[in-house]
Amino acid sequence: MSWTQTVETNRLTLRDRFRTTRAASVAMCEPLAAEDYRIQPIAEVSPPWWNLGHTSWFFARNVLAGFGGQRTPEDDQLEYLLNSYYASFGPRIERFRRGLVTRPTTDEIYAYRRSVDRRMEHLLETAADEHWADLAFVTEVGIQHEQQHQELFYSEIKCILAQNPVDLRPAYREATTSAQVSHGPANCQFVEVQGGLVEFGNLQGGWCWDNELPVHRAYLPDFAIENRLITCGDFLEFIDDGGYQRQLLWLDNGWAAVQQAAAQQEAQHKAWNAPLYWEHRDEQWWLWTLGGMRPVDPAEPVCHVSFYEADAFARWRSETFDDYRGVRLPTEQEWEHAARYCSEQAVEKGPAAVNFLDTGRLHPEPASRSRGGVQQMLGDVWEWTSSYYAPYPGYQPFPGALAEYNGKFMDNQRVLRGGSCVSERDHLRLSYRNFWAAATRFQFTGFRLARDA
Amino acid sequence: MSWTQTVETNRLTLRDRFRTTRAASVAMCEPLAAEDYRIQPIAEVSPPWWNLGHTSWFFARNVLAGFGGQRTPEDDQLEYLLNSYYASFGPRIERFRRGLVTRPTTDEIYAYRRSVDRRMEHLLETAADEHWADLAFVTEVGIQHEQQHQELFYSEIKCILAQNPVDLRPAYREATTSAQVSHGPANCQFVEVQGGLVEFGNLQGGWCWDNELPVHRAYLPDFAIENRLITCGDFLEFIDDGGYQRQLLWLDNGWAAVQQAAAQQEAQHKAWNAPLYWEHRDEQWWLWTLGGMRPVDPAEPVCHVSFYEADAFARWRSETFDDYRGVRLPTEQEWEHAARYCSEQAVEKGPAAVNFLDTGRLHPEPASRSRGGVQQMLGDVWEWTSSYYAPYPGYQPFPGALAEYNGKFMDNQRVLRGGSCVSERDHLRLSYRNFWAAATRFQFTGFRLARDA
Amino acid sequence: MSWTQTVETNRLTLRDRFRTTRAASVAMCEPLAAEDYRIQPIAEVSPPWWNLGHTSWFFARNVLAGFGGQRTPEDDQLEYLLNSYYASFGPRIERFRRGLVTRPTTDEIYAYRRSVDRRMEHLLETAADEHWADLAFVTEVGIQHEQQHQELFYSEIKCILAQNPVDLRPAYREATTSAQVSHGPANCQFVEVQGGLVEFGNLQGGWCWDNELPVHRAYLPDFAIENRLITCGDFLEFIDDGGYQRQLLWLDNGWAAVQQAAAQQEAQHKAWNAPLYWEHRDEQWWLWTLGGMRPVDPAEPVCHVSFYEADAFARWRSETFDDYRGVRLPTEQEWEHAARYCSEQAVEKGPAAVNFLDTGRLHPEPASRSRGGVQQMLGDVWEWTSSYYAPYPGYQPFPGALAEYNGKFMDNQRVLRGGSCVSERDHLRLSYRNFWAAATRFQFTGFRLARDA
Amino acid sequence: MSWTQTVETNRLTLRDRFRTTRAASVAMCEPLAAEDYRIQPIAEVSPPWWNLGHTSWFFARNVLAGFGGQRTPEDDQLEYLLNSYYASFGPRIERFRRGLVTRPTTDEIYAYRRSVDRRMEHLLETAADEHWADLAFVTEVGIQHEQQHQELFYSEIKCILAQNPVDLRPAYREATTSAQVSHGPANCQFVEVQGGLVEFGNLQGGWCWDNELPVHRAYLPDFAIENRLITCGDFLEFIDDGGYQRQLLWLDNGWAAVQQAAAQQEAQHKAWNAPLYWEHRDEQWWLWTLGGMRPVDPAEPVCHVSFYEADAFARWRSETFDDYRGVRLPTEQEWEHAARYCSEQAVEKGPAAVNFLDTGRLHPEPASRSRGGVQQMLGDVWEWTSSYYAPYPGYQPFPGALAEYNGKFMDNQRVLRGGSCVSERDHLRLSYRNFWAAATRFQFTGFRLARDA
Repeated sequence: MSWTQTVETNRLTLRDRFRTTRAASVAMCEPLAAEDYRIQPIAEVSPPWWNLGHTSWFFARNVLAGFGGQRTPEDDQLEYLLNSYYASFGPRIERFRRGLVTRPTTDEIYAYRRSVDRRMEHLLETAADEHWADLAFVTEVGIQHEQQHQELFYSEIKCILAQNPVDLRPAYREATTSAQVSHGPANCQFVEVQGGLVEFGNLQGGWCWDNELPVHRAYLPDFAIENRLITCGDFLEFIDDGGYQRQLLWLDNGWAAVQQAAAQQEAQHKAWNAPLYWEHRDEQWWLWTLGGMRPVDPAEPVCHVSFYEADAFARWRSETFDDYRGVRLPTEQEWEHAARYCSEQAVEKGPAAVNFLDTGRLHPEPASRSRGGVQQMLGDVWEWTSSYYAPYPGYQPFPGALAEYNGKFMDNQRVLRGGSCVSERDHLRLSYRNFWAAATRFQFTGFRLARDA
Repeated sequence: MSWTQTVETNRLTLRDRFRTTRAASVAMCEPLAAEDYRIQPIAEVSPPWWNLGHTSWFFARNVLAGFGGQRTPEDDQLEYLLNSYYASFGPRIERFRRGLVTRPTTDEIYAYRRSVDRRMEHLLETAADEHWADLAFVTEVGIQHEQQHQELFYSEIKCILAQNPVDLRPAYREATTSAQVSHGPANCQFVEVQGGLVEFGNLQGGWCWDNELPVHRAYLPDFAIENRLITCGDFLEFIDDGGYQRQLLWLDNGWAAVQQAAAQQEAQHKAWNAPLYWEHRDEQWWLWTLGGMRPVDPAEPVCHVSFYEADAFARWRSETFDDYRGVRLPTEQEWEHAARYCSEQAVEKGPAAVNFLDTGRLHPEPASRSRGGVQQMLGDVWEWTSSYYAPYPGYQPFPGALAEYNGKFMDNQRVLRGGSCVSERDHLRLSYRNFWAAATRFQFTGFRLARDA
Repeated sequence: MSWTQTVETNRLTLRDRFRTTRAASVAMCEPLAAEDYRIQPIAEVSPPWWNLGHTSWFFARNVLAGFGGQRTPEDDQLEYLLNSYYASFGPRIERFRRGLVTRPTTDEIYAYRRSVDRRMEHLLETAADEHWADLAFVTEVGIQHEQQHQELFYSEIKCILAQNPVDLRPAYREATTSAQVSHGPANCQFVEVQGGLVEFGNLQGGWCWDNELPVHRAYLPDFAIENRLITCGDFLEFIDDGGYQRQLLWLDNGWAAVQQAAAQQEAQHKAWNAPLYWEHRDEQWWLWTLGGMRPVDPAEPVCHVSFYEADAFARWRSETFDDYRGVRLPTEQEWEHAARYCSEQAVEKGPAAVNFLDTGRLHPEPASRSRGGVQQMLGDVWEWTSSYYAPYPGYQPFPGALAEYNGKFMDNQRVLRGGSCVSERDHLRLSYRNFWAAATRFQFTGFRLARDA
Repeated sequence: MSWTQTVETNRLTLRDRFRTTRAASVAMCEPLAAEDYRIQPIAEVSPPWWNLGHTSWFFARNVLAGFGGQRTPEDDQLEYLLNSYYASFGPRIERFRRGLVTRPTTDEIYAYRRSVDRRMEHLLETAADEHWADLAFVTEVGIQHEQQHQELFYSEIKCILAQNPVDLRPAYREATTSAQVSHGPANCQFVEVQGGLVEFGNLQGGWCWDNELPVHRAYLPDFAIENRLITCGDFLEFIDDGGYQRQLLWLDNGWAAVQQAAAQQEAQHKAWNAPLYWEHRDEQWWLWTLGGMRPVDPAEPVCHVSFYEADAFARWRSETFDDYRGVRLPTEQEWEHAARYCSEQAVEKGPAAVNFLDTGRLHPEPASRSRGGVQQMLGDVWEWTSSYYAPYPGYQPFPGALAEYNGKFMDNQRVLRGGSCVSERDHLRLSYRNFWAAATRFQFTGFRLARDA
């Protein structure tokens, strides 16, 4: 096994990062009732028990088993249930059945977590120096993997709680005061960005996913990009103008998704007539948040829209307003270039006020009316781009079983950039590539528009 | 509202029956882990929390609300979730989503049970005499309804636990010693029964379901019926002779079910190559029981077979053995007549050793080698008959909302008779009609054969 | 092979019956365009080319091959395509693909028919006397089989032509004048019928299907039955009173069919808001007939309704009108008994004015205002009964491969009686049992009501 | 309406092109039996009658109706049936029902073609000069559109005839001698190609589809591309090495397609264990061609493989052979650049021996053993690229209703390049972009591999 990257990490530092990350997974589940751990409303939304178990299995299978760590009988017993999609590790439960098993119990999963923690910490402290580089690398993958599942958790628990009838639906936690109705959004403006033969990918080095490499050049024409995210208020105009009823605004597959949602009645496939989690009651639009139901705030970024809805909005806006003629979703190159050089959060992993998970808001925030520049590139909502999730030129998957991590999913998915209000701050990078199928709505997804220069 | 039957019950007696029945529902859930309460593997298998809630709602909606009992806010809050299929009571959650909600919590459901219990007991003790007859009747319906759900519970929890991989699968309780491999079944013999113009239905009076009335006459030709249930050993011969592979043995819909099960992979729709819950491992057949996995005992009645499998077995046996030429499933009239006049359990609700729920075995038992007569008519397994679930001539549904209880399901279902090892003894009658669609396998269903005289 | 019945037929008489029946299949296709021969709008509706081929194959496979007739290479070539559902004859094309093959061409099918005709006639004329009885019997089965497919043809071509947009839709033939708007229906009255221990089945002897035997006794309570069929005018009242929107009027499966039809958009699964082939245009109801589109005539029998619609109508009428309290569909025993003893068409195969195929109307006719007695028992429309298609006591399927003809379909289908306006007169009997699944609408199906005495 | 391109065409020249193209559609149908015109085996394969009608409607709707040409009642009558997917033209028949209508008859469609031809020719000859430019442009679109449908026709009729059982299956025409087993393929070699900041799109001007514009620059790293197409012999190695059984070789969606094909039995969704139209009989692989069934020729290009199969083959080859380490499908930019500058067919629309439709072979041919350079870039088979079908930077759809022609399908489809043995020579360009969903197999699709320099 030879890794394409090296992570140079002090043993204690890595152990502490491991410990912190593992603890965060436990902490995020604290508000849950026992019932909330076991439900899988749609195949894409795994139940929290599985989330907690799978992230532990990932260390047991990839680190402990690969580097001479201690194995326990539970490792074997749980293999079938906790392997997500690694064909190279053998048979595994169908994804849609994760919500149909009642064993291991949630308590047993917590015990298994603690067992893996003990064994991992022991391994990190005692592994031979000659294997340290590889061990550190795979451990880092496991930590990053767990951070991804933490982000997933917030979208999953939002979806899980939303299955309950409104009258009985518990909030994940109390509403935060800052998220109340604001004083109107910042003005929307286009910021011109100069292109050229530009470098893309993980320019600053350090650990990253295989899909962010190699660093490569691509030619980028000049373009302009909006200084803030599309808001709920913007999107309400689209709804009020019949956007969900006008076939000519939609991609063919997008319109098919609208039609299909109207005909089906499965969980979360409700009619598409507004973003997911919006409900029209008493002559106004309400919104389901992790802090409970509240009226839609026109100033805050629209969230939980699919790529198709974002694309239809862009076409509507382009055709409806002269000022917006030619607007479209940005490519991922445009997004990355603008974020790197023209954003107020320009410094990679910049310290600017970004609404990541650590702000505790768990919901996107309105853009500032006072700040200039391109706002909200990081945090708040994942931003749909028009780019497909494709390998960069010269792409090399991680070696071994981890080759299955990213590469095999590079088909018919769109890239999202920038992280969201439920992303860990130290998990994100400007070069970070998230990806979902175009009809996905349960993630914290929004968008901004761009146009040719 | 006027009822077609009267139940003459002393107030305290009825309250005690109410109390006993309600307590049994709680007791049966004692072995459950918190996780086991919330899973719905297939639409037909409701999760235990719902079972506990729905039976309470039934009293709240039909008794408390109908007879001036105390109403609470919970009654309204839970209406949408706990109404099963009563269109006359308004909108309700789709059946398949009962396993997708996490509220009310299981604790809240138990609290709701206690609330309903208190209010019901108060009502039973204080209701005006002028309403007593009606109140007693509907209360009796509620008690019988809860007993049905208790029986359902045992089949549901068996299915729920079976979703877990074998290595992790907990038994519902410890295996009973009596269910170990026996010394061979009783010999199978045909007992001749004389027909004629015979009365059917609830001859002995007392409370019964609307579908057991009116008592009516039908002409029944002479026939013969087997003295015991078909055993696992009998059924193994069918399997070994290629029964599941020979299309000509099956009804057209039955063969389609075999083909469909082979192509699908949904929960509980595994390939049909043996009864449900049988697994072939290490060159022998194993069986999932509420007491855990154990080898198949050839002497015990075959269980968890669909009508289609029972029907195919009959055709196979008729074609294969001269001694069995012409065997077929009995009609429900044949079954009832034989049970009433030719069974060792002949007395209605007879005291003979019948393997009902109160034996605590929770599994069918081999027929006795020493006893004569027609055995096992009551208890052990529900017996498929060839009769469709149709209204008796002159059938009158219960009045009001309870009209939806039985009548609207009289379409494309087959009648089963006799109760099973998970039926309450005082819930069953010789005239009792159970019914399921012909492809159903998760119930405790078996069969015996009959033939023309 | 030993048959349960004998047909005593003169060789020339049988050959002539064969010839006449075969010619009728060709004649009925004369109005077709080449295109009409190849379409299969739903799995149940076979294309005419297949109808013509399959009825020929039936003789080749069951008669020629079984009695030493001449075989040709075409017999083998076409076996796979023309075998309908006989597992005992080996593999065959899936039913739903009959409309997806373009070979044999329609001309080739006609040539194959002529080849089979020549060979059959030669066999009928030259077969050894010792095999004559068996040969005659199987030939008779083939003739009756072809008559069934002739009836099917009229329903199939009606459905096939209906796939075309109304503006382009050709009539099968010109409208007949007699079917124009009539002067109101005969009054609807209930006729009392005395029951008792009654004989059922093919009482008069002669050839019949295996499912009409054995003749057997059953006890029939007294009852009353309507003197005429339910009319379009009757049914319009149901529609106008919200019948298709009121769940409580429907069997559970029937309501599911209504809901499913609203969600799906497959051919012929249009929304159920009226009988099949009704369309609401220009503020009135129109009807598709084999003579083209025309306004609905309130006086004529309603046609193309499913069992579920008939059942819901009965429940609606019972609940809505005091005069109709307790009405329901008749059982097949009630129908047969009334038809045999109380109908103006009482004589078996009676000569009374019955609207069978030979009237040439191809559409049901209003009941006569002048005639008394129970009208329309034969002809006009197949009448839904509440009886399931079940084997009579002691039922014996035809021997050999023909055992698959009827028996394996005796599951979840309802019996219809009396023939229709597209039935051959000499094909029908009072004991004749037709059967379809309860949701079927493309057949010429209607109903009348009955009630307890 | 203002077009982004101009077509400068002499009136008579354009009329002649129109006439020639229209005649070719009629000629290609000459071998068809009447039955072959009406079948739609899968939604994607329209029946020939529709193909002939839709291409005529395209002129009637877009040219005649838009430029004052003569309208006829047939134009209105056929609008609903012949509109393919233009929402801006109003309601239309669902695509999957094109094979379920029997009117208009095929004769009527031919008559409609002649009517459109007459009216079009009259308009082309008499239109006012001031509208000529626009008229010529839209007419050119109609001609190109018809050429696309001619190509589609060959793949559709291949699929339609393939529905017939092998014994009855007619060839579209006689087998050509040149397609017999050849003397082995040309050696496969990689040709190095120099990249840089390169121009792409329709460089040479003249009419083209909106999706080929604007001409734009992109940065292309150096790469190498194979000198010939992957052959059946190459692909047999993949099959023999278990390629269809090894999940790790496949994209996740590709493996799902393999699994789904194994479980389903719809037309053309047979198990994926070889390219479409391959059948294993008598211990060798046979191939269905428009000239009938014949053994697979290892030297000829593999055809009728999906993107997923091509992608899996590349991964297999990369992992299996040191010489092929890193091979992958080319991007559409790589393909276009290599075709333009490094192919023996380098001149745009070059005269080199290319196996387009006009060779009459209707099947891909082996690469030449004697010729050097990059062969087979044009003709033979459409070549899958790894590129998604995305708009070029600055893409402008055609104006008006024709905006729906291409743009709305730019989602989750992959680009194919180079045309095939059933493409019109004068329809193709090096910049031509074809596109299909990744699981498509019924088109004449193959591939070659590339790798980084």
